[in-house]
Amino acid sequence: MEAKTVISALKSVLSDRVSLSDADRANHGGSETWFAPAPPDIVVYPETTEEVSQIVVICAAHNMPVIGYGAGTSLEGHTSAIHGGVCVDFSRMNKVLQVNDQDLSVCVQPGITREDLNEDLRATGLMFPVDPGANASIGGMASTRASGTTAVRYGTMRDNILAMEVVLADGRVIQTGTAARKSASGYDLTALFCGAEGTLGLITELTLRLHGQPEAVAAAVCSFSDMDAAVNAVITTVQCAIPMARIEFLDSLAVEAVNKDADLGLPIQPHLLVEFHGSDQSVTEQAERFGDVIADFGAGGFDWSSKSEDRKRLWAMRHRAYYACLGLRPGKTAVVTDICVPVSRLAEAVRFARELIDAAGLVAPILGHVGDGNFHAILLIDPKDETELARAKSVSHQMVEHALSVGGTATGEHGIGMGKMDLLHQEHGAAVDVMQSMKLALDPKNIMNPGKMFLT
Amino acid sequence: MEAKTVISALKSVLSDRVSLSDADRANHGGSETWFAPAPPDIVVYPETTEEVSQIVVICAAHNMPVIGYGAGTSLEGHTSAIHGGVCVDFSRMNKVLQVNDQDLSVCVQPGITREDLNEDLRATGLMFPVDPGANASIGGMASTRASGTTAVRYGTMRDNILAMEVVLADGRVIQTGTAARKSASGYDLTALFCGAEGTLGLITELTLRLHGQPEAVAAAVCSFSDMDAAVNAVITTVQCAIPMARIEFLDSLAVEAVNKDADLGLPIQPHLLVEFHGSDQSVTEQAERFGDVIADFGAGGFDWSSKSEDRKRLWAMRHRAYYACLGLRPGKTAVVTDICVPVSRLAEAVRFARELIDAAGLVAPILGHVGDGNFHAILLIDPKDETELARAKSVSHQMVEHALSVGGTATGEHGIGMGKMDLLHQEHGAAVDVMQSMKLALDPKNIMNPGKMFLT
Repeated sequence: MEAKTVISALKSVLSDRVSLSDADRANHGGSETWFAPAPPDIVVYPETTEEVSQIVVICAAHNMPVIGYGAGTSLEGHTSAIHGGVCVDFSRMNKVLQVNDQDLSVCVQPGITREDLNEDLRATGLMFPVDPGANASIGGMASTRASGTTAVRYGTMRDNILAMEVVLADGRVIQTGTAARKSASGYDLTALFCGAEGTLGLITELTLRLHGQPEAVAAAVCSFSDMDAAVNAVITTVQCAIPMARIEFLDSLAVEAVNKDADLGLPIQPHLLVEFHGSDQSVTEQAERFGDVIADFGAGGFDWSSKSEDRKRLWAMRHRAYYACLGLRPGKTAVVTDICVPVSRLAEAVRFARELIDAAGLVAPILGHVGDGNFHAILLIDPKDETELARAKSVSHQMVEHALSVGGTATGEHGIGMGKMDLLHQEHGAAVDVMQSMKLALDPKNIMNPGKMFLT
Repeated sequence: MEAKTVISALKSVLSDRVSLSDADRANHGGSETWFAPAPPDIVVYPETTEEVSQIVVICAAHNMPVIGYGAGTSLEGHTSAIHGGVCVDFSRMNKVLQVNDQDLSVCVQPGITREDLNEDLRATGLMFPVDPGANASIGGMASTRASGTTAVRYGTMRDNILAMEVVLADGRVIQTGTAARKSASGYDLTALFCGAEGTLGLITELTLRLHGQPEAVAAAVCSFSDMDAAVNAVITTVQCAIPMARIEFLDSLAVEAVNKDADLGLPIQPHLLVEFHGSDQSVTEQAERFGDVIADFGAGGFDWSSKSEDRKRLWAMRHRAYYACLGLRPGKTAVVTDICVPVSRLAEAVRFARELIDAAGLVAPILGHVGDGNFHAILLIDPKDETELARAKSVSHQMVEHALSVGGTATGEHGIGMGKMDLLHQEHGAAVDVMQSMKLALDPKNIMNPGKMFLT
C-alpha cells in the first residue's frame, strides 16, 4: 500500500516526528473561518532544511500533496488538506538564526511567530514591524504576503523580506536572494515565492529587514459622527503625508463588539485608532498635525497618549477585534472580506459594503487598515445555514466586483487560498495564464498545496 | 526573403514608423560603456499597446529578436541587438496618461523619462523620486530594477511600481496588478517583470507610486580624512535611522573628476553628499543629528543649506559624475562595477576595491549610494587595449566574488545585461534554473532580448 511506503520513508528521515494521530490531523485540518475541516493524512515535524527537502522528495515520488503549516491563522483555508497528503508543520523550525544589528536584518526559520521574534529582538533596539493582528508565523506571513496595521508606514511582507531559502517541488534547495538591501540581479524570486501560498515551494529560512524601535510612540483613538467623515479624514491624512505608523478604522458595530469584549466604553460611533512613531519632537508634531486634520472632520475624543499601558490596551483590543466580532454571534463563524482599493475610492467602497450587508440581512462589523485602502467586513454566519453562507458569499463577491471596478484588488493581505479562486481569475484575466505557466514550470506534478489559488 | 516579409508586415502596422536607416540602427545599437556596437536590423516606433502587440506577433512568427529601447542609458548593454532583430523604440509612447493626486499615483507610458515625468508633476505637489542619475526612461528603469541616489529613503523601482501592462512573447497583453497600494492576490507578476530586462515581455504602461514633494529640503557636502571614516559615518547614520533622502559617497579621485568638470574646488578628500527631506522642523532636526554623527568621524566642511540654487548645483554635479569620471581619461570608455553589500561590510568592500584597482594599475574613481551598501568603481579603459579591458574585467569579477562572500549581490541597480551573465550564475547557483524555467515557460522561442541575462 502506497501510504505505508510513504509513512515508512518519512519515518526513516524523521523517526518519531511523523504523526498519524486523529487529534494531530484534526488540529492541522481546521480553519479560522467557515471552511469545512480537511485533515491531512500525515503530519510531520521537520527540524532542518535538509529534512524538508527529503520530505518533499518522498512526496514527489508518490504524488503526495505537501501542505506547509505555520500557526494556522490563515483566513482563506490555506492549510486545509483538501486532497489529503502530508502537512509540514514548521513549529520546530522556529529559531532566530542570526541578528545582524549593524545591517538592520535578521535571519530566521519560518516557524517563529512574529511576537516571539519581536520578543527575541527586544534588547537589540530593533523590531520586525509587520503586524497582521494574529500571532502568525513568519513563514506563513511570507507565503500569504501578509501586512496589517503597520503596512501604511513599514510596508508589507513583500517590502520586508530580503531573501529566502526555498525547497522546490522536487526537493532542490535555492536561495532567492542575498543579504544586500537591494539587487538588480536576475528575476525577483524573493517576490515570486512571497505570496505564492505554498504552491511553488516551502520556505525554510528568511532574511528579514528590521527597523529601529522608535524613540517615542504615541497612540490615540478618536470618534466620528459617521463613517464618511472617518474615512475622509484618513484620505486627507494620507495626502498630507503624515507618516502614520498605524491608522485603523472600526465602524459602529465593530466598536460595539470590542466594547463588549474588553469593556472599553467607547461611544458607539465610527472610530479611528492611530499610532505615531518617531523622535519625541516628531511624534508631537505628527500628533498635532493629525489633530488638525481630524478636527476638520468633526472628530471627537482625540486624546493622544505616549503611555505604554494605554497603547498596549488599545492594540490588544485591536488585535482581538476579529475574535471580539465573532463574539457578537457566539457559536457562529465568519466569511471575512479583504478588498483593497485606491484610497480615493475608500469611502465609496465602505459605504457600498455596508449597504450590501444590510440589504442581505447579515450581521457584519467593518474594520480595516484604511491608510492602505484595505478593509474587512466580518460576515458572521451560521455555517450550517446554507442560505446564510450563500448570502455572505454573494456580498463578498459583489464587494470584490465593486473593488475591481474602481481599480482595487480582491485581497489586500489574506491571499486567495480556497476562498477566492474564482475572484483571482476575475481580477487578473489573462495574467492568470502566466501564473499557471509558472506553477506548471515549477511544480509539474501539482503536489505543492494543490487546490489552492487556481480553479483548475 | 524573410526580412522583407517582416518589414512589409511591420509597415502594414506602423506605416512609416519602421526604419532601416544605418544612422537609426547605429543609434540604437550603441552603449554607454565598453560593449561593441550591435545595431538591430530594424527600428520601429509604436504609439500604442496594440501596435506593440502586433510587432511582437510578427516577430514571433519569424523568430525575430525583439529588443525594447527607452533612453539608451543602460550600463550593461541591455539594448544591444547582438542577434539582430527588431528594436522597439518607445520614444513615441511617452505620455502621462493619468495623475491620481488623491491616491498618490500616476499612470504613464514607458517612454517618458524621469525628468519629463517630474516636470509634468511639478504643479501637483507630487514627485516620482527614483533617481538613477541618468535621465532614463521609466520603462527602462522598471526593466532593470533601477534605483539610485534616493533609494535609501524612497526605495527602488520594485517598491514604486503598483502595476504594469505587459506585452508577452506571443503578443498577449496582461495587467500585472491593480491601482491598490497592496495586494495578496496571486503571484507577484509586477515584481516578476520589474527587473526582467525585457527578456519576458515588453512593458507598455506603468502605474507608479508618487510621493509628496517635501515641504523643506536641505543639502550638504562634507569631507573626511580617509575613506574608512566616510563609510563608517554612513553606517552609523543608517543605524541611527536618520531618514536620509540621499547619502552619496565620492572618493578622492571622484572628487578630482567632479572638480575638473564643474570647477567646484572641493578639497581632494573622500566626501559625502547628503540631502534631507521633511517639514522645516524635521529637516533641521535631521541635519543636526547627522552633523553630530559625522563630527564623531572627524568630518570637515559640513555646512547645510536649504537654498534651492546650492542644492541644484550639488546634484547636477552628482548627476554628471559618471561623465566627469570619463573626463579623467578623455576618449576612453568604462567598465562600471555595481556591487551592493550589507552596510556592515561596506568599508571593507570599498577598501578591497581600491586595493584591487591600484594593484591592477587602473584609473578608477569610486562613488555610490552608500546608504544602501551600493557603490560603483568607474574602471576607465581604452577599449582597444585588450589587456586593459581584461584587467578591468578581472577587477570587476573579484569585486563581485568578494561581495558575494560577504552576503552581497553582483549588481545593486544596473542589472545583468550582457556584462554580468557569468556572475548571475555565480550569485544564484541553482536558482538560475528556476529563472530559466520561467523564461522558457513565457518565451519558449527566446525572442525577447536574447543573449541577455542568461549564459545559454
